[in-house]
Amino acid sequence: MALVFLLWAGSTSGATRARDLGIPFDGTPGPHNAITDVAGVEVGYATLISGEGELVIGKGPIRTGVTAIHPLGKHTTNRVFAARFTMNGDGEMTGTHWIDEFGTFGGPVLLTNTVSVGDVHAAAIDWMRERNPDAMTHLPVVAETWDGDLNDHYGRHIKREHVYEALNSATSGPVAEGNVGGGTGMITHGFKAGTGTSSRKVGPYTVGVLVQANHGNPWRLTIAGVPVGKILNPDETNHFSTTQTSGSSIIVVVATDAPLLPMQLQRLAKRPAMGVALVGGIAERTSGEIFLAFSTANGAPDIDGEIVTLKALSDNAVYTLDYLYEAVINATEEAIINALIAAETMEGANGYRVEAIDHQQVINLLQQYGRLNKKNE
Amino acid sequence: MALVFLLWAGSTSGATRARDLGIPFDGTPGPHNAITDVAGVEVGYATLISGEGELVIGKGPIRTGVTAIHPLGKHTTNRVFAARFTMNGDGEMTGTHWIDEFGTFGGPVLLTNTVSVGDVHAAAIDWMRERNPDAMTHLPVVAETWDGDLNDHYGRHIKREHVYEALNSATSGPVAEGNVGGGTGMITHGFKAGTGTSSRKVGPYTVGVLVQANHGNPWRLTIAGVPVGKILNPDETNHFSTTQTSGSSIIVVVATDAPLLPMQLQRLAKRPAMGVALVGGIAERTSGEIFLAFSTANGAPDIDGEIVTLKALSDNAVYTLDYLYEAVINATEEAIINALIAAETMEGANGYRVEAIDHQQVINLLQQYGRLNKKNE
Amino acid sequence: MALVFLLWAGSTSGATRARDLGIPFDGTPGPHNAITDVAGVEVGYATLISGEGELVIGKGPIRTGVTAIHPLGKHTTNRVFAARFTMNGDGEMTGTHWIDEFGTFGGPVLLTNTVSVGDVHAAAIDWMRERNPDAMTHLPVVAETWDGDLNDHYGRHIKREHVYEALNSATSGPVAEGNVGGGTGMITHGFKAGTGTSSRKVGPYTVGVLVQANHGNPWRLTIAGVPVGKILNPDETNHFSTTQTSGSSIIVVVATDAPLLPMQLQRLAKRPAMGVALVGGIAERTSGEIFLAFSTANGAPDIDGEIVTLKALSDNAVYTLDYLYEAVINATEEAIINALIAAETMEGANGYRVEAIDHQQVINLLQQYGRLNKKNE
Amino acid sequence: MALVFLLWAGSTSGATRARDLGIPFDGTPGPHNAITDVAGVEVGYATLISGEGELVIGKGPIRTGVTAIHPLGKHTTNRVFAARFTMNGDGEMTGTHWIDEFGTFGGPVLLTNTVSVGDVHAAAIDWMRERNPDAMTHLPVVAETWDGDLNDHYGRHIKREHVYEALNSATSGPVAEGNVGGGTGMITHGFKAGTGTSSRKVGPYTVGVLVQANHGNPWRLTIAGVPVGKILNPDETNHFSTTQTSGSSIIVVVATDAPLLPMQLQRLAKRPAMGVALVGGIAERTSGEIFLAFSTANGAPDIDGEIVTLKALSDNAVYTLDYLYEAVINATEEAIINALIAAETMEGANGYRVEAIDHQQVINLLQQYGRLNKKNE
Repeated sequence: MALVFLLWAGSTSGATRARDLGIPFDGTPGPHNAITDVAGVEVGYATLISGEGELVIGKGPIRTGVTAIHPLGKHTTNRVFAARFTMNGDGEMTGTHWIDEFGTFGGPVLLTNTVSVGDVHAAAIDWMRERNPDAMTHLPVVAETWDGDLNDHYGRHIKREHVYEALNSATSGPVAEGNVGGGTGMITHGFKAGTGTSSRKVGPYTVGVLVQANHGNPWRLTIAGVPVGKILNPDETNHFSTTQTSGSSIIVVVATDAPLLPMQLQRLAKRPAMGVALVGGIAERTSGEIFLAFSTANGAPDIDGEIVTLKALSDNAVYTLDYLYEAVINATEEAIINALIAAETMEGANGYRVEAIDHQQVINLLQQYGRLNKKNE
Repeated sequence: MALVFLLWAGSTSGATRARDLGIPFDGTPGPHNAITDVAGVEVGYATLISGEGELVIGKGPIRTGVTAIHPLGKHTTNRVFAARFTMNGDGEMTGTHWIDEFGTFGGPVLLTNTVSVGDVHAAAIDWMRERNPDAMTHLPVVAETWDGDLNDHYGRHIKREHVYEALNSATSGPVAEGNVGGGTGMITHGFKAGTGTSSRKVGPYTVGVLVQANHGNPWRLTIAGVPVGKILNPDETNHFSTTQTSGSSIIVVVATDAPLLPMQLQRLAKRPAMGVALVGGIAERTSGEIFLAFSTANGAPDIDGEIVTLKALSDNAVYTLDYLYEAVINATEEAIINALIAAETMEGANGYRVEAIDHQQVINLLQQYGRLNKKNE
Repeated sequence: MALVFLLWAGSTSGATRARDLGIPFDGTPGPHNAITDVAGVEVGYATLISGEGELVIGKGPIRTGVTAIHPLGKHTTNRVFAARFTMNGDGEMTGTHWIDEFGTFGGPVLLTNTVSVGDVHAAAIDWMRERNPDAMTHLPVVAETWDGDLNDHYGRHIKREHVYEALNSATSGPVAEGNVGGGTGMITHGFKAGTGTSSRKVGPYTVGVLVQANHGNPWRLTIAGVPVGKILNPDETNHFSTTQTSGSSIIVVVATDAPLLPMQLQRLAKRPAMGVALVGGIAERTSGEIFLAFSTANGAPDIDGEIVTLKALSDNAVYTLDYLYEAVINATEEAIINALIAAETMEGANGYRVEAIDHQQVINLLQQYGRLNKKNE
Repeated sequence: MALVFLLWAGSTSGATRARDLGIPFDGTPGPHNAITDVAGVEVGYATLISGEGELVIGKGPIRTGVTAIHPLGKHTTNRVFAARFTMNGDGEMTGTHWIDEFGTFGGPVLLTNTVSVGDVHAAAIDWMRERNPDAMTHLPVVAETWDGDLNDHYGRHIKREHVYEALNSATSGPVAEGNVGGGTGMITHGFKAGTGTSSRKVGPYTVGVLVQANHGNPWRLTIAGVPVGKILNPDETNHFSTTQTSGSSIIVVVATDAPLLPMQLQRLAKRPAMGVALVGGIAERTSGEIFLAFSTANGAPDIDGEIVTLKALSDNAVYTLDYLYEAVINATEEAIINALIAAETMEGANGYRVEAIDHQQVINLLQQYGRLNKKNE
């Protein structure tokens, strides 16, 4: 088959995102194609990158961070309706007993590395108490993925000030991707990845997704239906094995302003699994895949008085719900690929090096398989 | 200890209930002390008792029935918010995938014997379709307990007309107890039991409970804290064994008009386990203990338009919720004991005979242990 | 792009399957590429097709059936380890309270239409009792999808003899696909579908999948990464709407001979969601997606004596588990597409006609996008 | 009613336990009537009591601690089969995503105050890594109840050395109760409580329970069926209100050497709710009630090789299972009352004082209601 390979010149300003390369996605994103397109949501990072060479626990090299997501902005810890789904429990997200019981949570969501969960948890309580001394919420939501390949994670370099930095620097608007925040040292389908985000418009509503992607097997990487991983790794024998280490864990946070009740958010919280599948993930045995969904509508549904009045999407609004489900899947797929596209090659502990995916190669493969966006050809 | 034993003269009219004997319970019941105290709820029965002597499958003896509970009355199958909890899964309640997903169900709840679940399910779809030809609800809620000791259950004597009879005869007001409806052939803590009901007032709200009680070990029967079963069965050795068969299964249906969301009803659906415990139940290995809770507030929460407006109790209404939780526990305890007190001795298949509990003996034991209501002494 | 379109001549004998067309799938199937590749598993059908023209409830036209799956063959109802996962609860699978509690079930799995669940349930109890009079299992596993578009489903044409026919005719070996058994009247992604099956070898183990596929949106149909639905339906506006009705429900049954405990089977039971996603499903609002997984190893794990000795795959057998997870996803994807490829155009109630997918068109599109198997080009 | 009140002289050596007072309990305890009667289980504490008077955050007064439970002793972090049940999610237990997924956990269980969860979590990872540098378990199980009434909890006085102290000092044998470890500052049914334990023999097996009890409403306190709380608080009006603060949370850890699979341990993990009920608890709205059950049989079920051989109790061992369920309920009831009986009056932050229950009063009330053990009369 005769093919003309296109050359991608890169973006002249700002970071590259999957759409810039011509990777096709369904649906219409919001203005920033980010979780912050859901009004009120703010995202902040602390990114710790320092040192190189041999790993000395407590010294470094350091390749880690914290991501903070405020559902209603950093100036309130009021509760929002929420739900979680654990596709694969080889991971941690604290605060989920409360979420399962009450269908709400108050305060930020924090994403970090596996070993720093406790430190971030403790700092989050301090920060929440300072913001709202009367609040009785002492059950912060802290989730993790593993960066022990690139980072001196046992050194537990994330301190209280880093957690505060992520929390206090959070903003709406564009969201950095790749090697930032909790995603700093993460790897997906064999390539450097980390933080990614995307959003979709659904009628009057917006769905936003942020992932901390550290999962997936190299051989199975799929972009826009093209089996990129299989092409790059032609030998499928033992694609699950120590020679092709699968990543470990993906946390997906889904935000929406659609007025959904917790029972409805449970359904949104399940759909990231389908987005993960479209990129080639299978929720590997060692991959903690824990998904959280919240709605900014009905803000603070449990704090005023004896009876509250709520707006909710009817479960008979069948097609609106279908579009919302689809939006979660589409935005999860795009957020993962955004994390891959934005991340840069990183060398970390003991000189361990993880390559970024080659943008031109992705373009060429999509072109070859007739899947590149027409406007990018 | 010197004790004066009181003689109970029985009720001069109507069936005897636990309170009539002076058994103390906490809280204030509604006017009928029945699930029908929740406005809108209607209960109907078909009770099949015929034949005696040797069991011949398909002939009898027949000791079984069907109970129908309409959350919003028999003239509508509109949905109500609902939740279920399975304390012990050795049983069946159909329709729960939908309830778990949407937090609602439409149409009646039907209670019957284990083997008739299919026949009742089929009849319920017919009945619902006739009432509401446009309804797409084909997932009836049918639950069961086992009456194979007294009844020719394999004969599957419950026919479509019996299901219709229970559904169409349902009324508000007083509710028959004991050997009626689905509870006809049931046994609890070694005594004849079956259907029981009770209710509690909680501020402006009402909680009603109906049980189909067929569970519990004779030795563990406890009434108002008095270890009645241990007194009547002094040898505790092997109290779980073939010589003291434990019952099998209790279904508890909890109704309320408090405006609770599905996540809140899940909590109500868990509390019957605590009421079962107070009467001596342990959710025995063979006892299917499946509990359903629904709220008649926000009637038909999903059938009108794209956005619905709901009233809900705030989760910060801490004490109201505590009283609601307590009401479920208290009403479950009383409903089980009501089933025991109301049931009459029954002889069934192959001459198998199950005694009713001796009312005077209960009075005497409570008197002996200082637990009889003062007004009954 | 210059393309040579290939002409598919069809199979000269036997039914066509997805692989025959050159659709690529990962992994190695068993000898029949069917759930029966798991030793012991037998599948039987009753297929009811009669009448045409106007729908008269109780008369027809009839386009429905029953599928029976025996985990350990039709001559035993011994229990197997099992687990279920409900991706979307707009559906029914009976018997799951027991499965959730004990991690086992005994007897066949039966798949039928929504309205016949009760009749099939009742017949299954009869059949199991006749096979094993001492068995106390009266909680059959009956699942459903909706065939009310093509079939007079309210006529409830499935009678006891049809259930027995499916149960008694079950065999190992090749498994018919498409318009057979419970899948007779089913529709997937806008095309006629129904029953499909596939299997995978994983080291010494086999994973087999059988689907009753009645789900999915036409616009989203994806085959081997090629967006077939979007190409055939270029206008993506309102792809969820009354003009492009999404299907309703898919039941997936996963069998394996790998020695997995119930906690491990729960993970297998989640993975069909990822296979559904690869074909374009999103677990639509009205699509009941309930998945069951069982292991034929450790046969009858609870029936002999006080202590049982079990073999189980270690959770540290990370890569074996990964391959098993992947096998479920791959086999689910293939089984759905097999159902689409095998099904033939059907005209049913009121002349409603559902087209089979055009095999040549599928070949052409895969060819066009470079995804046709080399050997088929 | 004429009654002779008995005077309790107290124990001449060692701490008082509920049985010493003549409170009757069912079943036969192990030699220490403690969770450590399950061979292998070790318990250790760090108890922090210092300062008095006004609360100054970071200074004190300090009334808190940590409890460590090693399922297989402090010299291994090998995994055990386990399950958890959340009766009420207003609380935290970390590590439960893993437990829900794999039915195991490795390393200790740590109980502490609500605000110290993060610090204890971080210290636990350090301790586990030092013990077992190759272990990949970084998901410690840390649970909490709230001691903010008596303790400067925001001061987060529990440091890494306290966690190590609890972990390293753990032993088998007798277990201290009351104001020790994580239970130091806890309150139950209006009285000072904290840590309690109990055990039961079930044929060849032992069931042990340890509670950190900080729950329950004063008015509802029930001992051996006697409504102690109602007698001491005759006005039942507003028993749930700010004037009779209900406690907040109870953590129950259940250990057994019976060879139970995770699905079976899930059932054990549900039964503490029934023991809580017998003492008057209702799982109040603000009471986090999270229960963990583990089996020391099949030690380290997932660490050796590809296939493991397991022993498991058959689910057809109906009566053994019934006795195990009952043992959990009985031991939970006794452990809560042991916590109440062992705890001593405490004065803490801002001079807040919580009284111990009056032993003589308990004896008198049980005597009055005919419930005191004969041998103690």
